[in-house]
Amino acid sequence: MSKRILIVGGVAGGASVAARVRRIDEQADVVMFERGPNVSFSNCGLPYHLSGIIPSSDDLVLMDPVVFKNQYNIDARVNTEVVSIDKEAKTVTVKNVLTNEESTEGYDKLVLAPGANAILPKSISGIDGENVFIVKNVVDIKALTAYVEANNAQHVTVVGGGFIGVEVAENFKLAGKDVTLVEAMDQIMNPFDLDMVQILHKEMIDHGIELVLSDAVSSIAKDSVTLASGRTIETGAVVMAIGVHPEVTLAKQANLDLGETGGIKVNHHYQTSDKDIYAVGDAIEVFHSITRSVTRLPLAGPAQRQARAAADHMYGIPHNNKGVIGSSVVQVFDQTAAATGLNEKAAQRAGIPYDIVYIIPGDKVGLMPDSNPLHFKLVYEYPTGRILGAQAIGKGNADKRIDVIATMITMGGTLEDLKELELCYAPPFGTAKDVVNHAALVGLNLLYGRFEQVRVDEVRGLVESGAFIIDVREEDEYALGHLINAVNIPLSQIRDRIDEIPTDKPVYVHCRSSQRSYNALLALKGNGIENVFNISGSYLGICCHEYFNDQMTGREKIVTEYNFN
Amino acid sequence: MSKRILIVGGVAGGASVAARVRRIDEQADVVMFERGPNVSFSNCGLPYHLSGIIPSSDDLVLMDPVVFKNQYNIDARVNTEVVSIDKEAKTVTVKNVLTNEESTEGYDKLVLAPGANAILPKSISGIDGENVFIVKNVVDIKALTAYVEANNAQHVTVVGGGFIGVEVAENFKLAGKDVTLVEAMDQIMNPFDLDMVQILHKEMIDHGIELVLSDAVSSIAKDSVTLASGRTIETGAVVMAIGVHPEVTLAKQANLDLGETGGIKVNHHYQTSDKDIYAVGDAIEVFHSITRSVTRLPLAGPAQRQARAAADHMYGIPHNNKGVIGSSVVQVFDQTAAATGLNEKAAQRAGIPYDIVYIIPGDKVGLMPDSNPLHFKLVYEYPTGRILGAQAIGKGNADKRIDVIATMITMGGTLEDLKELELCYAPPFGTAKDVVNHAALVGLNLLYGRFEQVRVDEVRGLVESGAFIIDVREEDEYALGHLINAVNIPLSQIRDRIDEIPTDKPVYVHCRSSQRSYNALLALKGNGIENVFNISGSYLGICCHEYFNDQMTGREKIVTEYNFN
Repeated sequence: MSKRILIVGGVAGGASVAARVRRIDEQADVVMFERGPNVSFSNCGLPYHLSGIIPSSDDLVLMDPVVFKNQYNIDARVNTEVVSIDKEAKTVTVKNVLTNEESTEGYDKLVLAPGANAILPKSISGIDGENVFIVKNVVDIKALTAYVEANNAQHVTVVGGGFIGVEVAENFKLAGKDVTLVEAMDQIMNPFDLDMVQILHKEMIDHGIELVLSDAVSSIAKDSVTLASGRTIETGAVVMAIGVHPEVTLAKQANLDLGETGGIKVNHHYQTSDKDIYAVGDAIEVFHSITRSVTRLPLAGPAQRQARAAADHMYGIPHNNKGVIGSSVVQVFDQTAAATGLNEKAAQRAGIPYDIVYIIPGDKVGLMPDSNPLHFKLVYEYPTGRILGAQAIGKGNADKRIDVIATMITMGGTLEDLKELELCYAPPFGTAKDVVNHAALVGLNLLYGRFEQVRVDEVRGLVESGAFIIDVREEDEYALGHLINAVNIPLSQIRDRIDEIPTDKPVYVHCRSSQRSYNALLALKGNGIENVFNISGSYLGICCHEYFNDQMTGREKIVTEYNFN
Repeated sequence: MSKRILIVGGVAGGASVAARVRRIDEQADVVMFERGPNVSFSNCGLPYHLSGIIPSSDDLVLMDPVVFKNQYNIDARVNTEVVSIDKEAKTVTVKNVLTNEESTEGYDKLVLAPGANAILPKSISGIDGENVFIVKNVVDIKALTAYVEANNAQHVTVVGGGFIGVEVAENFKLAGKDVTLVEAMDQIMNPFDLDMVQILHKEMIDHGIELVLSDAVSSIAKDSVTLASGRTIETGAVVMAIGVHPEVTLAKQANLDLGETGGIKVNHHYQTSDKDIYAVGDAIEVFHSITRSVTRLPLAGPAQRQARAAADHMYGIPHNNKGVIGSSVVQVFDQTAAATGLNEKAAQRAGIPYDIVYIIPGDKVGLMPDSNPLHFKLVYEYPTGRILGAQAIGKGNADKRIDVIATMITMGGTLEDLKELELCYAPPFGTAKDVVNHAALVGLNLLYGRFEQVRVDEVRGLVESGAFIIDVREEDEYALGHLINAVNIPLSQIRDRIDEIPTDKPVYVHCRSSQRSYNALLALKGNGIENVFNISGSYLGICCHEYFNDQMTGREKIVTEYNFN
């Protein structure tokens, strides 16, 4: 007798379960219910329609119910909502949302893949206005573009600086709109630490996005939004993207266990507290394999893996659940920003002792015309050197380096492993000593006590307290911009000018990207000056770190001129 | 008392030893001897000067002796050849190649980093002609460009289809020259198997390079080369790039042990058979960590790691020698071709049982305007699923996927590990299920016996023997080009047309890239047709595999029209 498998939700997780079940079992009766009019659309592609990079919104729909039926013999029912579950009877009640007709469907196995919903705080007056949109599905994106066009909106306000908010802001800007992005925290893009994300803040404002941090929307009117700070912004449309919460209505109705994060609780096999009901995707909570605790991770890749594992389990095929680490990437105009594993904030929250490396090498051989600095931050466990996470931002292939780190994390790699990695190299693609090798070497030098560092976010304090800072770049580089009170002693002169350096207080050295300053530091130590610290990130890092706040606040600069290359 | 460290060779390996010694020991007396006029130039960048991508040949020189002295207190002596070693006295005799003056220098530690020399067979008459060049250093590239310019050479012959040969051919072509590349084997680019490299063969001829395979240069005259086949090619200049052999003259003179590969034999610490003499770089043989045997690997990345390890050992700093796996990448016009670990040929030579996966997914979300097929071949050990190597070729970021595989190999990863990897994804960068995840899933389906495959290089035989081949693409796709005797039964009709499929002989299925054909295969199996094979690589793979030989030989095509997208 063939199995009857019902699936709630027809996008990443749901459609993947359906396809995998069909591949395992040609005879299974597979029915997929989707409340909206489309199954299997590209969530992640939605923002790219706003700029026209993906010209037609119809293209966002990857497969329609006819194709599901013909190619996979899967019964995909759109405009159909599952309204309740009877666990004992093993049935669900489904409602046609167009006709409101209800019917009952029996199952052997039920899969919940309902996704997550945009958070729309009722406390914001006007949140349900016709000028307020979310970007969850193709219907939403069509409604948003139609409204903007019909109302000839020239200004759009995006609320929330996560992936969707940033992508929506960028794509509206690329379409020629004026865009304000409002974020309640002091930074956008939570996978990045504040020191790294300053590069993205700079990129946004350099491309004309008005970036409002540490402020929130308190009310929305037809043609404006008012912020908590009291400021009112005239705007033609508002996109809410402050986050999502898991869709657990059905799970609650059926008395399935929810986890401490608010997501549906699942076991190793993605079974809920009822063994005939599975749950996958944005609605569940998952196990983080670095923090060893549960979390939520609403991303497409993990959803697909969960879907496969759930389908396999229905047929007794074992699956090795490795948990998640969280890998992501976003395009922000000319910058690629990628991250994996834990950043500093997450390591602190998890109580894991750590140290960091921040380097800014070239993403490829400096001679090549499209070589650019790559800002790379590595977080590793102290004292083991186990790799915990990394963040990379630059105009070149940041994602490549983060994928390598993600692989290392998954395989339990340490700085010693990373140092020895043999990656592919030719001048158009990288450097003989890759960025990740370089980061590992710096990390090992720190771990093995060869030098000590201070961080870019400590430099303002050092400058203000009159610390002795040596800029070891050559004189022509110093002339183009430097820390206001740094002493210029080029690496090429440092051994001859050792007498100029005090021995009774700490000395801080920097160059452009910390490579020459590391050599200078060792030369100083070799000449008896022991109390010396490398400024991690050096001048490039200092400028990137200071620029945004300087621009926003008009505070006094600690550099004579910014320098970003 | 300070150590005196002499280094023979001032490029990747030698310069890296010198710099690392200085960082460890401010007091060491470090002298670096280089026979040529430049230290620390970019070998790998040399070909890119031929096209003007690197406009000035002077830029190829990264650091001159003055900078070495001033910044690192390293005594870099150019135009200085080390002509002999006295191991007992711990001295070397050095000769100024401009004045022929000789002197003696004592050492505590000596490092040999002399590199490798281009192979120039004496058996080729005219090999020492003024029109014959190699591309080893900046002097060579200046001489080559000067000769081509002075003689107004419009045609260049490149002999040898390895990295240097291919890069030289491409960059001359980009400069507007007519280029013939002659390769003695039946393929260029040895890191790739023949089935994969056909894509590069196609790319070369599509961009107007005349590619001559399975033929060799037998003699060179002033304005022509004559091949073994008897053909004569009129040509303005000849670049020899058939390979390199390690420079072991000094090692032989000093009676240091050479290995079975002809390279200098070194131990774990890169010491030669004399414990005070180290050797690193292209001149040595190294341990391959997959084949567990010695090999030679003349690449910049490993040379730098060896250099650091040797310097560390002089100062008692331990180093974890992990051997090499061999990772490389090359740009061939619009294609990026990257490889790591073992290809099939190498696995066969090493006697390692293996199987392969060949897939052609999109390198990013298909909706994005710059999405392109990525040809990806994974080699894994049978029956363990341990990952042995991979090759990737496409217009997008092939290098990223190969770096992930290189990391997996280094960490001992299997298909199960690769399947679960959580890589960063957004539509501009990849797909939610990355190429490498996809390859792992296909590999596991093979390993676990869910299906059997035949390879693209078996398809011609199948067609000629009248095998029953089903093309499961839709009718409009079939109409644009198909195997001459394939039966078109679209996946969307396959369950209804099961009666058309014979049960008394093997059935072969393909689609565009093997994804739909895999689903079709399982549908057939689920409907009682057991003797069915997936054609790995499908129509895209078949076309890429057949195109080059069809073009070269004029043989009968087995497809009605080629299709490459």
